[in-house]
Amino acid sequence: MPEHDEFSIIDQLFKPLAGLSREARGLIDDVAVIPGNEACDLVVNTDALVAGIHFFEHDPLDLVARKLMRVNLSDIVAKGAKPYGYQLMTAWPRGTSYAEKADFVRGLKTDQDRYGLSLFGGDTVSTEGPLVISMTMFGKVAAGKALSRLGARTGDRVLISGYIGQGYLGLKALQGQLLGLSHQDVNEVISAYHLPEIRTDLVPAIRDHARSAMDISDGLLGDADHLARANNLMIRIDLNKVPTSLSARAAIASGISPVELVTGGDDYQILCTADEAGARALVMAGFYDIGMCLGVSEDTPAGAELWADNRRIDVAAKGYTHRL
Amino acid sequence: MPEHDEFSIIDQLFKPLAGLSREARGLIDDVAVIPGNEACDLVVNTDALVAGIHFFEHDPLDLVARKLMRVNLSDIVAKGAKPYGYQLMTAWPRGTSYAEKADFVRGLKTDQDRYGLSLFGGDTVSTEGPLVISMTMFGKVAAGKALSRLGARTGDRVLISGYIGQGYLGLKALQGQLLGLSHQDVNEVISAYHLPEIRTDLVPAIRDHARSAMDISDGLLGDADHLARANNLMIRIDLNKVPTSLSARAAIASGISPVELVTGGDDYQILCTADEAGARALVMAGFYDIGMCLGVSEDTPAGAELWADNRRIDVAAKGYTHRL
Repeated sequence: MPEHDEFSIIDQLFKPLAGLSREARGLIDDVAVIPGNEACDLVVNTDALVAGIHFFEHDPLDLVARKLMRVNLSDIVAKGAKPYGYQLMTAWPRGTSYAEKADFVRGLKTDQDRYGLSLFGGDTVSTEGPLVISMTMFGKVAAGKALSRLGARTGDRVLISGYIGQGYLGLKALQGQLLGLSHQDVNEVISAYHLPEIRTDLVPAIRDHARSAMDISDGLLGDADHLARANNLMIRIDLNKVPTSLSARAAIASGISPVELVTGGDDYQILCTADEAGARALVMAGFYDIGMCLGVSEDTPAGAELWADNRRIDVAAKGYTHRL
Repeated sequence: MPEHDEFSIIDQLFKPLAGLSREARGLIDDVAVIPGNEACDLVVNTDALVAGIHFFEHDPLDLVARKLMRVNLSDIVAKGAKPYGYQLMTAWPRGTSYAEKADFVRGLKTDQDRYGLSLFGGDTVSTEGPLVISMTMFGKVAAGKALSRLGARTGDRVLISGYIGQGYLGLKALQGQLLGLSHQDVNEVISAYHLPEIRTDLVPAIRDHARSAMDISDGLLGDADHLARANNLMIRIDLNKVPTSLSARAAIASGISPVELVTGGDDYQILCTADEAGARALVMAGFYDIGMCLGVSEDTPAGAELWADNRRIDVAAKGYTHRL
């Protein structure tokens, strides 16, 4: 790639994403500078996506860009932080056209406006392999107030921010493995796979009422298992309380197991725990109460269990990998 | 890649890089948290390297890791900031062994200890293509004191932190295009290509005495041209004052043009400008005075010119691309 290409891509495509943000220095300097602020901690997250692994090689690049932003945003929101800005790394396959890069940037623009982010800086390189994109996102939270997956206690309620299984069903649909659903239902789950809805509106409730929180990307049950083990607790999830969309219920009616939905991945919902009062406030804000934290004993080692109708469901694999 | 592999890589290889740093949360949470600090701004830089583009496919991975760290560090130091920590993204080709990843991590460990950095967080993914690695590095600087490539003024001296052309000669040697040099000279320039020496010791001098600064990676003359244009100035560089190593002088004696060295790239030295007093202090600290900033006119448009023996040298391409 001749050098002037890289500069014109930055100038024409990326500068508008930086806008007037002080941090970006208009992308004319070599670095971003985040001003000191005693009142706020910075929550930092890095997530990368690779063509052929995390998305389909021929997915529209504006959707890929928005998914990259959202998988990062999901972690920021889960820690109770307000979206702030991001660094971007793009490794383009040789021969990627200006128009394709412009599509990608258009996707970033759509979602950064929606979620209140701006581009601070980054690097753009080329590769002989598939597209690799990586984002380091920053969120702001009052000093000392960033949530962690640690902090859950025995007796805490376990809550989830929305429907489980949408992304998993979307992936199945794109792979041609979801049959018997209406066109509308199929579109809905595919859309959830491409563009998980990130609940930035829940940030204040999470920050004020949750004791521990994380986003779930590798399956509700698997990630609940991680949270439980990190806190040396047993989390019991009631399958009957796990919220699912009408589309998902239609999928279950056509033969998808409800257990698949809670192990399926690509949800990008927020899992959190809270005491009774906190749980009530979180439910008021839109969370669903799906279970509770129990102490561990010889009979109940640390981890997550799935229950329904007062019986434990034996689940072989707690978390599927959400690779293509 | 089965999920437990990713977790064991993080646990066994990456956790030791995070150590006890508060920011990393021991890598057991999903995010890093950088504590608020009114007194310090955060300088943020992202640079990526791709196998087959920025390094050779079979380069030792510990050296590749250290180069990734150093190309990022170079920007942090150029802004007068103290190295602090980093986020890391690695996209491994399928089939990369644990031992290869351990080599990579060993390289990171060597240089993070050397430069006072620690791992804050990141993401590790796989790809069907070549290795892609990206780092977002943080540096700390007193609030409002981060340097920029903007700020140079007419009359400023132009300074450089060390030898020019070492990395370029190293690349030529690795490509078998550097003949007639002693074994020792060849080893020296190859070593400079793999592991550019980053002058963190110069941070206080840069911070206190430079008016504008940037690192040079795409060739001294090309990057001086960028700095000049950003400030709407003419920078005149005296080729006879540009510092070169004994190896580089041996290369010149065997037919390499001195002009190639100043356009060659991969230097990772600091270019800065300063007033007369600042320049004296910078020279005392180890910088070399190589030219000056002039006002622009119809005869001297913004940009960088190379002079020697009071004559301007016509240079076709001001900056080579430093791709393989």
